[in-house]
Amino acid sequence: MSSSVVCFRCGERYDDETRVRCACGQPLWFDTPDTDFTFSDDRDRDGMWRYESLLPIERPDGVARAAGGTPLVRSPGLDRAAGCRVYVKDESENPTGAYKDRGSAVAVSHAIEAGADVVGTISYGNMGISTAAHAASLGRECIVLVPDEIPQARLELIAQYEPSIVQVEGDYGALYADGVALSASHPISILVSDAPARISGYKTVVFEIYESLAPNTPDAIALPASSGGFASGVWRGLRDLAALDLLDELPRLYLVQTASADPITRAFDSGATEPTALSPEETEETIAHSIGNPDPPSGARALAAVRETNGAVVSVTDAEIRTAQRRFAVDGGFCVEPAAATPLAGLTRLSERGAIASNEEVVIVPTGTGFKERGTGDVPVSTERTSRSALPELLESLLDAR
Amino acid sequence: MSSSVVCFRCGERYDDETRVRCACGQPLWFDTPDTDFTFSDDRDRDGMWRYESLLPIERPDGVARAAGGTPLVRSPGLDRAAGCRVYVKDESENPTGAYKDRGSAVAVSHAIEAGADVVGTISYGNMGISTAAHAASLGRECIVLVPDEIPQARLELIAQYEPSIVQVEGDYGALYADGVALSASHPISILVSDAPARISGYKTVVFEIYESLAPNTPDAIALPASSGGFASGVWRGLRDLAALDLLDELPRLYLVQTASADPITRAFDSGATEPTALSPEETEETIAHSIGNPDPPSGARALAAVRETNGAVVSVTDAEIRTAQRRFAVDGGFCVEPAAATPLAGLTRLSERGAIASNEEVVIVPTGTGFKERGTGDVPVSTERTSRSALPELLESLLDAR
Ligand SMILES: [Zn+2]
Ligand SMILES: [Zn+2]
Repeated sequence: MSSSVVCFRCGERYDDETRVRCACGQPLWFDTPDTDFTFSDDRDRDGMWRYESLLPIERPDGVARAAGGTPLVRSPGLDRAAGCRVYVKDESENPTGAYKDRGSAVAVSHAIEAGADVVGTISYGNMGISTAAHAASLGRECIVLVPDEIPQARLELIAQYEPSIVQVEGDYGALYADGVALSASHPISILVSDAPARISGYKTVVFEIYESLAPNTPDAIALPASSGGFASGVWRGLRDLAALDLLDELPRLYLVQTASADPITRAFDSGATEPTALSPEETEETIAHSIGNPDPPSGARALAAVRETNGAVVSVTDAEIRTAQRRFAVDGGFCVEPAAATPLAGLTRLSERGAIASNEEVVIVPTGTGFKERGTGDVPVSTERTSRSALPELLESLLDAR
Repeated sequence: MSSSVVCFRCGERYDDETRVRCACGQPLWFDTPDTDFTFSDDRDRDGMWRYESLLPIERPDGVARAAGGTPLVRSPGLDRAAGCRVYVKDESENPTGAYKDRGSAVAVSHAIEAGADVVGTISYGNMGISTAAHAASLGRECIVLVPDEIPQARLELIAQYEPSIVQVEGDYGALYADGVALSASHPISILVSDAPARISGYKTVVFEIYESLAPNTPDAIALPASSGGFASGVWRGLRDLAALDLLDELPRLYLVQTASADPITRAFDSGATEPTALSPEETEETIAHSIGNPDPPSGARALAAVRETNGAVVSVTDAEIRTAQRRFAVDGGFCVEPAAATPLAGLTRLSERGAIASNEEVVIVPTGTGFKERGTGDVPVSTERTSRSALPELLESLLDAR
């Protein structure tokens, strides 16, 4: 499909589909394709590829076919914590356990079609894992740029697909601009967090939510926010649906940040149209290491999405995140990573302040599995111990104690 | 749905749907329901619940809705290792990262409907994780029986859903019979590996494979084998399809065991109709800890499935499993656990001996994610190191070196 990328703010268009930023400084994305798509199309297609006609590439073989198509689940057990009627869109059920696969499935193939010999990314977490997996599946080399001080456990997760891993000393945030510049000058496409083709992949999550709930529509959608890329994808999806006359009213978008690094929340609270980059002194360590970008490249677009949909941005503490992660497991049966638990923690706050009513239907998007970091063996666990012969008696006491 | 369970070998029927074993000693399963199911039914349903009319319960809310519905992916990158045309049925894309969720989704609800106050299972791995998650989602208490010497990392994976965990000293294999007996005498349903309702859940993987490939059909399906429960479910699914006139010829079933504990392979090779339990001296440690049952309760049924479909059972070594696991990641982009890599290792052996032709289409079922045990931080990883200013030069050398 011949297409162009466009600036969400100034409307400038560019024919170079791999261009990431507008001359005005804002990020680019693909506009709604000129098609007659309806939800009955391609119902038999795999995962996110039933929306192939709304994407800038044809579906590739391999692991990309397994991306998206995640379940949307009514989860009454989580209603109490959230203060509303909860639906869980379980993005852990992607090939590498995170929503990032939707973006990589489109962006890696798109980069190859556009002539890149090698693909790459800048990530010490899920995006690095996902990009390396998709490159491996297509038989392409991949280079993952990580910070110098990356934990060994995260290196191991990325390394299993055997990309080249480069530990880069210096300002990690500045690598975004380096990656964009190097992609323009070298035969490599470094797929940053808000590359337009990634955003196209992310938007499919909204199509799936709408198709699953039809003819009903959710009152709100809650997701974690870091670079603003995923929020941009969700907004892009909603705008596509509206442009295709498939959606009348946009649901409220709630973005949740870690209080340890929350420039988008600060900008939202102060009424600013773009976040101000946080200095190292303004950020802290957090258990939600998959989020917390101090200088979010799509922050302004994320803020626009929230304001246009009458949503909000809130921050939550590590203690609230831990509680929400436990509620996901114990009341919902879902194993999510700390960053993926933030939307539930955010809903707790929002319903306490009256922003959400208890009869409203809200879709929570846990963005990644908790299994990547569970099972390290250093968490204390309390158990009962018995012998086979004493087991009946112990069972009876456990059953009686209920 | 009122139904009964039946013995695969002697045909005896029992009205008690929770009964696990026939008086003849063999395991029971649900027969094909008396319905007019066709593949166009319930196309909009979540995951495995589009086959609800073929299951012994109505779909519950919560995490069970997220079970099944996994992608089937043509993966050309794996053809060379397998020696045939590979399709991957990625069972890691289940809520707890393993095919076990199909069984738990049906069996936990079924047990509750049948009157159990508490559910339980016997497992130190994926089945324990899955059963605990499904019980949590339905607000039911769960008791997981584990061996006394379980590693701390596995306790942590199970414990996140907060079941009661009981470490039982003594012969772990003998707990199967204990569990069946205790379920009959106490208000608990201990859902063993081949409980009939679990088998009903497992059969949905076959329905999905057939619907994904229709109007084509696979020449063979390859899966790991341990207790024989999953193989029984796959065979049950094929028999249902045949009974419903949706399938003419059964694909060959290939079961793959770890050479460290392979009673089903030994029985297959010797022409026996049931496996002989292995003594502790006949088994070894293996990296494929999710399989390797020395006394498989559904071993005879698994053998019957293989013989009826003209398939085979093969064993593979830890070295072959490691190689297959690496091929899954590096050539396929899939992160699978060692047990889940065995079918690929088995296909390598089978095609080398000429049992599979290179133009045959074979579905491999990697049964569980590798993310539960990746990321421990004790795997050496080689990286490049550079500074931001030296990055362009390093990238050029990496690109030139290709
Ligand atoms: Zn602009
Ligand atoms: Zn019998």
